[in-house]
Amino acid sequence: MRDLPLRDVYKLLEPGPVVLLTTARRGRHNVMTMSWHMMVDFMPPLIACVVSNGDFSFAALRATKECVIAIPDVSLAERVVEIGNCSGSDTDKFARFGLTPRRGEKVDAPLVGECFANLECRVVDTRFVNKYNIFVLEAVKAWRRARPDDPKTIHHRGFGTFAVDGEIIHLPSGKP
Amino acid sequence: MRDLPLRDVYKLLEPGPVVLLTTARRGRHNVMTMSWHMMVDFMPPLIACVVSNGDFSFAALRATKECVIAIPDVSLAERVVEIGNCSGSDTDKFARFGLTPRRGEKVDAPLVGECFANLECRVVDTRFVNKYNIFVLEAVKAWRRARPDDPKTIHHRGFGTFAVDGEIIHLPSGKP
Repeated sequence: MRDLPLRDVYKLLEPGPVVLLTTARRGRHNVMTMSWHMMVDFMPPLIACVVSNGDFSFAALRATKECVIAIPDVSLAERVVEIGNCSGSDTDKFARFGLTPRRGEKVDAPLVGECFANLECRVVDTRFVNKYNIFVLEAVKAWRRARPDDPKTIHHRGFGTFAVDGEIIHLPSGKP
Repeated sequence: MRDLPLRDVYKLLEPGPVVLLTTARRGRHNVMTMSWHMMVDFMPPLIACVVSNGDFSFAALRATKECVIAIPDVSLAERVVEIGNCSGSDTDKFARFGLTPRRGEKVDAPLVGECFANLECRVVDTRFVNKYNIFVLEAVKAWRRARPDDPKTIHHRGFGTFAVDGEIIHLPSGKP
């Protein structure tokens, strides 16, 4: 995996793909599926996301204040759905779904080797956790695989229905 | 436009489309382009979004605590970009871009007649505005046009590049 400049992180999350979120706590890693996230600032890249207090990852995220956001392309869609339909409380999801945990540089949460992009993140604000389960993250290191050249991401419409990226259009715009 | 059940609002925003956000203040309406938003809860539908304090809409949103999130399909892509590249401070954007403001039911901000869905929203939390420009909204009334049947939304990758919805896939999932 190659470095991805932090200033380009928003280009991957702003389109709203389904992502995976990994955590590590007491030597045990976990991965969950997440669709409720948004960019908050370009640089440093700030990201808000909702991790429900009903999710097994919630306690690890709150305690360690670290995670990785891994972005899968459509080839992983089946596994992404299955990851979202079981719990780390009784499942080693990396093993069960054949995902490769890889060591990052800044956080202990694992990268997902099969994902085309991985964002190492630290939790920088927890003031909205109690009321809304909203965590504010800062991406502190980002990785991008060379292949595929133009990964197609998936966008969840509820109950396992997804729109896959189709045509790419370019319109004149001065706005990032 | 028909009623859209509030419980279905997340299905439209969770996929991460570029949206329009309208406001009205002192008899003057405005519309801006927005990509930084996420769902926070299903019911009542809570939505977080970032409206920069550099945007002309910021003051109206903060003062009136009302807005409409209108979702355009790809046929409006050129106008969506142009709306994002000018300011309501010196432009009547509804007039300039041939958009039809329509009266909603719960808020004074106008619906956008050309958009396939419109969500009337109230600001319910401003505690993250000063630090992050994050507003928490509640959708209080939602509208959906019958046509098109399956609108294709657009997802911004930066500087006027968009992924348009392509193939729709359905995978077995018990999760909303």
